[in-house]
Amino acid sequence: MDISRQSPAPAPELAISQWFNTAAPLTLAGLRGRPVLLHSFQLLCPGCVAQSIPQVQKIERVFADTDLQIIGLHTVFEHHAAMTPVTLEAFLHEYRITHPVGVDLADEHSETPITMQRFRLRGTPSSILIGRDGTIRHHVFGVEDDIVVGARIAMALAEKPSVTLSSPAEGESDDCLAGRCEMPETSTGAA
Amino acid sequence: MDISRQSPAPAPELAISQWFNTAAPLTLAGLRGRPVLLHSFQLLCPGCVAQSIPQVQKIERVFADTDLQIIGLHTVFEHHAAMTPVTLEAFLHEYRITHPVGVDLADEHSETPITMQRFRLRGTPSSILIGRDGTIRHHVFGVEDDIVVGARIAMALAEKPSVTLSSPAEGESDDCLAGRCEMPETSTGAA
Amino acid sequence: MDISRQSPAPAPELAISQWFNTAAPLTLAGLRGRPVLLHSFQLLCPGCVAQSIPQVQKIERVFADTDLQIIGLHTVFEHHAAMTPVTLEAFLHEYRITHPVGVDLADEHSETPITMQRFRLRGTPSSILIGRDGTIRHHVFGVEDDIVVGARIAMALAEKPSVTLSSPAEGESDDCLAGRCEMPETSTGAA
Amino acid sequence: MDISRQSPAPAPELAISQWFNTAAPLTLAGLRGRPVLLHSFQLLCPGCVAQSIPQVQKIERVFADTDLQIIGLHTVFEHHAAMTPVTLEAFLHEYRITHPVGVDLADEHSETPITMQRFRLRGTPSSILIGRDGTIRHHVFGVEDDIVVGARIAMALAEKPSVTLSSPAEGESDDCLAGRCEMPETSTGAA
Repeated sequence: MDISRQSPAPAPELAISQWFNTAAPLTLAGLRGRPVLLHSFQLLCPGCVAQSIPQVQKIERVFADTDLQIIGLHTVFEHHAAMTPVTLEAFLHEYRITHPVGVDLADEHSETPITMQRFRLRGTPSSILIGRDGTIRHHVFGVEDDIVVGARIAMALAEKPSVTLSSPAEGESDDCLAGRCEMPETSTGAA
Repeated sequence: MDISRQSPAPAPELAISQWFNTAAPLTLAGLRGRPVLLHSFQLLCPGCVAQSIPQVQKIERVFADTDLQIIGLHTVFEHHAAMTPVTLEAFLHEYRITHPVGVDLADEHSETPITMQRFRLRGTPSSILIGRDGTIRHHVFGVEDDIVVGARIAMALAEKPSVTLSSPAEGESDDCLAGRCEMPETSTGAA
Repeated sequence: MDISRQSPAPAPELAISQWFNTAAPLTLAGLRGRPVLLHSFQLLCPGCVAQSIPQVQKIERVFADTDLQIIGLHTVFEHHAAMTPVTLEAFLHEYRITHPVGVDLADEHSETPITMQRFRLRGTPSSILIGRDGTIRHHVFGVEDDIVVGARIAMALAEKPSVTLSSPAEGESDDCLAGRCEMPETSTGAA
Repeated sequence: MDISRQSPAPAPELAISQWFNTAAPLTLAGLRGRPVLLHSFQLLCPGCVAQSIPQVQKIERVFADTDLQIIGLHTVFEHHAAMTPVTLEAFLHEYRITHPVGVDLADEHSETPITMQRFRLRGTPSSILIGRDGTIRHHVFGVEDDIVVGARIAMALAEKPSVTLSSPAEGESDDCLAGRCEMPETSTGAA
């Protein structure tokens, strides 16, 4: 599940066609100095809805008093007509998602959108933890246990002065229904 | 949570604009003699996705060898542009929903679709259990405990000869996020 | 998981050395005419504590207005010195178990107590559903899904006039820790 | 839930009458330089069995490659005759608890054992996180969310060089059954 573990690579930049829950577009370059949790999901991905989104919402509450930046990335790589920005907007409202969410920029030559290609995401949900120096500290496809996730973020935060925590369950599987959606081999195009 | 408990009223007929997972349209009249579980949901209703749909799928497995008919009813009363049949079709595919699902017929004079009006549903998820004689045996808004649900269906089935079970958890709340979506007062129109 | 399914056999009688939560000793003979749910457990059995006891407590609430009789059976077949009636009494208090519980009578020739031998229980948790006629309707080692359990009890109740339900989740495994404790081959003695 | 938050106080020493799962007795003095997670429980405490013990076992797996020391503390303050070392030993075996567990030393003048008095524990489950310098970093009665718990331990570990994580859900309540057992006012004696 670990793609990193080598010496950390610099994170590529986001390519976003539309933002929700933010007045101004966000860029990773502009967030340098802060840790960033990038959460890739699709609104019709069962594992995202049942597991990774609730986990991200808990992370948001626990680390509310820190300078962690959470960004949702709507990476549609299948059922494009079913997961439009109109449906996404209603989804964000119904699920009370209030952190910034960007729609990954479509690629006219591929089913897979641009940011998803740049980060080489295997499917949804995926999470990428970016350090204060802009490098990728952890990249996971699926959902990891809350204890590990809390520990990793704390370590990314600890690279700078003091951190305050606020106070607020999961599995993993091989199937789109049970926990994550893997892209078919053929849907990855050229970036 | 109980609307019935009086002497059981006859169930009104379904009004459906489009069917999924069935070769021919279904009618309650045509199902007379069999118990029917009618499950009203919206694909962006968090309580439906997290609780009632998984429960219905377990019911489907447990009562697979009986003559219980399960019918899903997509009763869109909000975010109409976000929950179209195109999105519903992808949703049914991703969530592996294989029992018949009908799209509740839109009412040009109301946000609330026709079948939802006829059954006086308060919101989603709602479940209606119809007896072999076509009367409403139970009507609930929200999700009841599995033990109660299993017992009620068994009693509806027991009104006829022998029943065989196959072998394969829940809460309730007042909030659209936590378990069910209640219609605003203003969205119910004339039938 | 099913030992029954043949034509139902008459349930043997209980052999109890000490009762809790009942003024007078209970016998199956004396309960003829009512359905009985016999629940076999050990207080140090993880699957009993995590799964079957909470399920039995939900059953108790759901069927409170019916004539179902629930009986707990403390069938100690291992760690005898650790699970004495003194510890059981504190356990029943801490877990708020208020239905009648009997201590299965020890057999001086075997690790396995007498009632456990008579019913040929494989381990804990085990549940036996006895019909109004005193025959065994279902016998399961482990924990079944709530929907199935609710349905079976409703069917046992339905063999007589009307039944009223009150309103109030599970797995199974092969390991003592995860869900149930199986007796070692050698611990079954002569009855 | 937070007793700390002031400037951290030095942890008092343990007082243990019997150890399990360790060849030699442990002392906090001897563990100076390593972070210590002290987990207070009772084997008949429902919240300990259902929530805090599984959480501690996950912590054990996640931080297996770090120098975190986990210590279980069996702090019996009620039902003393029911929770003897004989029953504890069988409990540790059945629940697969393999980290060191000490029996808190009984106080002949109080229902509350000595270590529990020294740490001023309110009941079970309680957790105390001790830093590398021997001071109390966090003290909680009940169970906190896994994300917070993982983050706190990571921060205690981060006070020294690098940390490696391995990869492997919860609530809180006011009631002994639902999550934690609070001592009655009268059971605390003199230390």
